[in-house]
Amino acid sequence: MSKPLLAGIEAGGTKFVCAVGYSPVDILKEIRFPTTTPEETMTRAYDFFKECQEEYGPIASLGIGSFGPVDLDRRSKTYGYITSTPKVRWAGTDIVGFFKSRMDVPIGFDTDTGAAALGEGRYGAGRGCDTFLYLTIGTGVGGGVVVDNKALHGLVHPEVGHIRLVPREDDTFQGTCPFHGTCLEGMAAGPAIQERWGKPGIELPEDHPAWDLEAYYLAQGLAAMVLTLSPQRIIMGGGVMHQPQIFPALRRYLKEFLNGYVDRPEITEEREDYIVFPERENQAGITGALLLAQDQLGAVQ
Amino acid sequence: MSKPLLAGIEAGGTKFVCAVGYSPVDILKEIRFPTTTPEETMTRAYDFFKECQEEYGPIASLGIGSFGPVDLDRRSKTYGYITSTPKVRWAGTDIVGFFKSRMDVPIGFDTDTGAAALGEGRYGAGRGCDTFLYLTIGTGVGGGVVVDNKALHGLVHPEVGHIRLVPREDDTFQGTCPFHGTCLEGMAAGPAIQERWGKPGIELPEDHPAWDLEAYYLAQGLAAMVLTLSPQRIIMGGGVMHQPQIFPALRRYLKEFLNGYVDRPEITEEREDYIVFPERENQAGITGALLLAQDQLGAVQ
Repeated sequence: MSKPLLAGIEAGGTKFVCAVGYSPVDILKEIRFPTTTPEETMTRAYDFFKECQEEYGPIASLGIGSFGPVDLDRRSKTYGYITSTPKVRWAGTDIVGFFKSRMDVPIGFDTDTGAAALGEGRYGAGRGCDTFLYLTIGTGVGGGVVVDNKALHGLVHPEVGHIRLVPREDDTFQGTCPFHGTCLEGMAAGPAIQERWGKPGIELPEDHPAWDLEAYYLAQGLAAMVLTLSPQRIIMGGGVMHQPQIFPALRRYLKEFLNGYVDRPEITEEREDYIVFPERENQAGITGALLLAQDQLGAVQ
Repeated sequence: MSKPLLAGIEAGGTKFVCAVGYSPVDILKEIRFPTTTPEETMTRAYDFFKECQEEYGPIASLGIGSFGPVDLDRRSKTYGYITSTPKVRWAGTDIVGFFKSRMDVPIGFDTDTGAAALGEGRYGAGRGCDTFLYLTIGTGVGGGVVVDNKALHGLVHPEVGHIRLVPREDDTFQGTCPFHGTCLEGMAAGPAIQERWGKPGIELPEDHPAWDLEAYYLAQGLAAMVLTLSPQRIIMGGGVMHQPQIFPALRRYLKEFLNGYVDRPEITEEREDYIVFPERENQAGITGALLLAQDQLGAVQ
């Protein structure tokens, strides 16, 4: 008996990753392309899966981890939709419906960061943690929360990028978020760095004051998350976190903001294994999408 | 066969509630007394249980919901301790150990708000929710989080009272929290109201500007919690919440802070069943403590 073929989509705000494989870490074929219009982008993903079916046989299930906000409530009329996203062309896109009408397979659906968090939890830096937080700091700030091996949804799903911050006294920047101005995403995502300093983060030297300010804002957001969720580990990826000098400053500021109230060595001793870089990095999202596909088979069989 | 007798302690920062019963909602005897020194207060609780055993026979298990921060990590040397609390006389108190050495029964242990959250979840306003938040706004601001019928612990446990706030432009108050100044507890708990306005909240008229400011700060804290945890319901009790005029203002400010980003009618339509007063109120904590006792028997038998 052959293993069922899993398909996954990591639907990101800037790029889509699509893959098929016999397990979340046994990928046969993968494709990456930029996110353009919904119709064009989703059609390209579907065409890839059609090709894969010709090569490997029928796909058994599909998992989608999508940028959001998305509707994860199965009882809702807009289940499987991207809802009020700042990427206006995508607001109100029925991403699950698009694939459901074309591929007659069970579809698992979560946020892109929820899927990536699951991927890191099962195969990466979140192993061994009951409760952890996974963040990406890139063109936006996204976050997934895993509790007991499940991505936390609740009313909708976490949107930690939009936590309001207290601007540092020496910073008059108004923030880039169209919804909240000086929220975490508005003050610390890639576009905020670019607008504040006049060039993208990648062009700023390692000792540029941008990185200390970046750590200050990220740690301020983390403090609110630690106080609400008490994660056992915080995994932080995305383009901005490729600046390794951020991590020590981040640990120092987190300790400073909590000021001894969360009295654990992970925080008070600024432990390096508390705030960590992802282990699977660029593969976490697609791994998680394939895990969502695999979960569908467990539920069906 | 007689039912096992459960014992519970709601160990609050201002008062202790102790009870015995055959189920969390079938209480035979209950006592309430002020929290003084650790030795005196815990001895009084123990004496109550001794009396109950004379009257009703042996106690089968004990549940304790304690003010904190507390150590909930069973692998830790200080498991069952109250740790770095602002109530300095209680810092480093081994509350589980005190009872363990005197009563040879299994002991369940959680935070006071974690226990109350479990009580509201099983028998009160949290029924039907997978993920909800329970807050008390009184002499401090405490919070418990329930995910899938379990109080969330993670690294330690939530401490939502210490989320940092942005002071409103017309408010120059520096906050009362010795750890963080202008955190939620420092700006919005009972002592903050008293210090800011020169008299306790209970003496301020219903239309006093204190209440609008109170709702503003509480909603700002809630916004961070909603973005991190995405609760399906928020239950808010404690002395301060006995001002019913806070609730409509709180719903309005939460909507304003989230500004359409969490696009759900619970928030955008300011629904009355989203932010609610507890159903069990003063009984939630002791109900939860007895649930913790009951869980111990499930684990043992």
